Amino acid sequence: MSETKKSAGVAPAFAGRHEPRPLPFDPSKLRGLSERLIRSHWENNYCGAVKALNVVEQRLAAMLDDPVLPPYVYGDLKREELLRTGSVGLHELYFANLGGDGEADDAIHRVLSRAFGTFSTWEAEFRRTANALAGGSGWAVLALGPEGDLHNYWAWDHTSGAPGSRPLLVLDMYEHAYHLDYGAAAARYVDAFMQNVDWEEVSRRLADATASVGTRYETWDQTSTPG
Amino acid sequence: MSETKKSAGVAPAFAGRHEPRPLPFDPSKLRGLSERLIRSHWENNYCGAVKALNVVEQRLAAMLDDPVLPPYVYGDLKREELLRTGSVGLHELYFANLGGDGEADDAIHRVLSRAFGTFSTWEAEFRRTANALAGGSGWAVLALGPEGDLHNYWAWDHTSGAPGSRPLLVLDMYEHAYHLDYGAAAARYVDAFMQNVDWEEVSRRLADATASVGTRYETWDQTSTPG
Amino acid sequence: MSETKKSAGVAPAFAGRHEPRPLPFDPSKLRGLSERLIRSHWENNYCGAVKALNVVEQRLAAMLDDPVLPPYVYGDLKREELLRTGSVGLHELYFANLGGDGEADDAIHRVLSRAFGTFSTWEAEFRRTANALAGGSGWAVLALGPEGDLHNYWAWDHTSGAPGSRPLLVLDMYEHAYHLDYGAAAARYVDAFMQNVDWEEVSRRLADATASVGTRYETWDQTSTPG
Amino acid sequence: MSETKKSAGVAPAFAGRHEPRPLPFDPSKLRGLSERLIRSHWENNYCGAVKALNVVEQRLAAMLDDPVLPPYVYGDLKREELLRTGSVGLHELYFANLGGDGEADDAIHRVLSRAFGTFSTWEAEFRRTANALAGGSGWAVLALGPEGDLHNYWAWDHTSGAPGSRPLLVLDMYEHAYHLDYGAAAARYVDAFMQNVDWEEVSRRLADATASVGTRYETWDQTSTPG
Repeated sequence: MSETKKSAGVAPAFAGRHEPRPLPFDPSKLRGLSERLIRSHWENNYCGAVKALNVVEQRLAAMLDDPVLPPYVYGDLKREELLRTGSVGLHELYFANLGGDGEADDAIHRVLSRAFGTFSTWEAEFRRTANALAGGSGWAVLALGPEGDLHNYWAWDHTSGAPGSRPLLVLDMYEHAYHLDYGAAAARYVDAFMQNVDWEEVSRRLADATASVGTRYETWDQTSTPG
Repeated sequence: MSETKKSAGVAPAFAGRHEPRPLPFDPSKLRGLSERLIRSHWENNYCGAVKALNVVEQRLAAMLDDPVLPPYVYGDLKREELLRTGSVGLHELYFANLGGDGEADDAIHRVLSRAFGTFSTWEAEFRRTANALAGGSGWAVLALGPEGDLHNYWAWDHTSGAPGSRPLLVLDMYEHAYHLDYGAAAARYVDAFMQNVDWEEVSRRLADATASVGTRYETWDQTSTPG
Repeated sequence: MSETKKSAGVAPAFAGRHEPRPLPFDPSKLRGLSERLIRSHWENNYCGAVKALNVVEQRLAAMLDDPVLPPYVYGDLKREELLRTGSVGLHELYFANLGGDGEADDAIHRVLSRAFGTFSTWEAEFRRTANALAGGSGWAVLALGPEGDLHNYWAWDHTSGAPGSRPLLVLDMYEHAYHLDYGAAAARYVDAFMQNVDWEEVSRRLADATASVGTRYETWDQTSTPG
Repeated sequence: MSETKKSAGVAPAFAGRHEPRPLPFDPSKLRGLSERLIRSHWENNYCGAVKALNVVEQRLAAMLDDPVLPPYVYGDLKREELLRTGSVGLHELYFANLGGDGEADDAIHRVLSRAFGTFSTWEAEFRRTANALAGGSGWAVLALGPEGDLHNYWAWDHTSGAPGSRPLLVLDMYEHAYHLDYGAAAARYVDAFMQNVDWEEVSRRLADATASVGTRYETWDQTSTPG
């Protein structure tokens, strides 16, 4: 089959072949987050999103063949694609930054102090951003922007994100992330989350992201460090 | 001043010192997009967003010092921060991918054919995603995801984006991007935009993004290329 | 004090004096919805929204006095006002349409059959709209529009609604409405909700709303009823 | 044909038979808003929304027959239904409250003074809410809430609205409402809009809405009027 004859249906963009990743930690071992909660979250919300994304990609391919389809109807499904892509990606980042001891090392402390003034300012802002989403839905995300800048982002749902930014630490504030264990006490869930952060994973992400941001970040890094 | 005493107000995350970037092309030379439109877009919408982002970052720092502030009020300004961050970043990407001749080279054709089946399937989907936003607001974005996957994303406003994805080609569908020239005829604006795409910039972004995605992308690249 | 000297702070629009309404039924008596869930929902989510709305209204009054405040910062708090207004109003409608036996009378059957083809078509669409929001947040709302038309509306969050429409039956699909009892099994929660609908309240709302829609509704009512 | 056999396709909720209403004023006679702008707005944005709503209602009926359709795909089209319903309804309210001389009578002054402290406080807040949406999309809406309360609401797009509220004065802040005449100078468009408000229409809506709110409003009306 020639390159140009491949139908959209089997092209990677529309293949719908995403597979869930297993939990990267033992869900019975987290502090303050029950195995029941984590398993339900992984199975229903994360795996559900993977399944839905596959369905959506394949439906998009079928819709592309319909020449009279109004663009806005296509757009409705493109919104669902973005929503599910965000849900899959953010859940993978979330589970992968859990399972640690909650202790950030010196290098992380230095980087976050440089960006936010002090480490505790960073932590206060990250928690406040998370708590701002209590009772609703969304994510709090520490991310490295394309200029090497670090920010905590407020994300209202799975479709939200800063363009070109690289998520380093991701906290799910959808109620399915905590209600089974904490009911409406979202701030106590945030406490529990912080005690289970795998900061080594965050460091790995920061190293990857910094490498890709490149020279600009290094420059910024030096000029903004007073003696 | 000790590291920990630096106030949030002068920390980079709250510094509010973003500067607008000049237009990277001569705005009198685009085909089908008037100098008046481009200058208004750059000055009012883009520079306005830079200014607003600076204000918001500094207000966040001031708010952080208020211990009784309800988190949701802080969250309201965090939303504005994300909105302005998205507007600044996407506008910079948009202007930087204009000013070209609209002709994608063979390498781009190959990459997009591989991901979408054919180049024209890619283009049809990109245009349909853009046209789905006609009469409202948003962006159509071709982006490389963290797994090396390529997708056209539908973004409803400046806050939308797929987590960890790298924008390669960005098309502004806010009405301020075309009404002065085309009124409600959004599809004609999309035609004009496509004739001015700077595909060399897209290639540079793809090279940068691919480098950072690394091995996984290369692997995918090979396995999904039938002989 | 003269009319024009009254400060915005004590004017009704900015007074911040909303009071929670008590539950209009015995929360230990619902079928399939636990007292613990209902009490947490009422106290934390509904009463929390009332409290927040009061804070927001008073903050708006204070902000109005600041002549250099950028409009978009004011807008951020106006969004929170709409969000909380929606949450308060929808929760009041929700609790008030619970506590019944789930049996719609003949008049309701006739009205919904006329609008949707059959009562079961209405119910299927209402449930599907609700289930579309599973795992996230939002509301399913049966409402009478300003032309006397009946529709089930999909609402993504508390800010969503059709202009001028009158909600008749309101179903909360935020995860706080069911996770404590059903975890991720949203469809089972929808089943439970339907068994507790107070259709007499729905009839009262319909009568009120129809009266206000007036002649146009009556006309439509007759012309669209085939013999 | 029996009541229960009517297919969803011809039921009013899915009929897709909305017809555009003509402009209720002479578009060549507004002050500061060009005939070209108004005609484009009416024809492209409003009539386009009517057409789209008809398509969406009919597609919903067809989708209802598909028993294996995932609810979230149905929900995507329900979102489009709400979006188009909002666009149709708000545009009708907008055009119908234009064409006047911009002078509110004494009764309106009294009502708004009572609710906001002074008429000029009301106007300042309405304008600020509108200007908060400059450069993006949305609506500023003065509405009577179900308790007889008056508020200016900030609406981000056509899907936004306070539950059960009755819009009295509606200002379109989508860029298609002003860019042809004012470019990015949104505040000047708001000035022009205010000079063309048909306050008699607003009074009629207030009378209708007050009648339907009924006794609660009268009570509030009296107790909140200081001597």
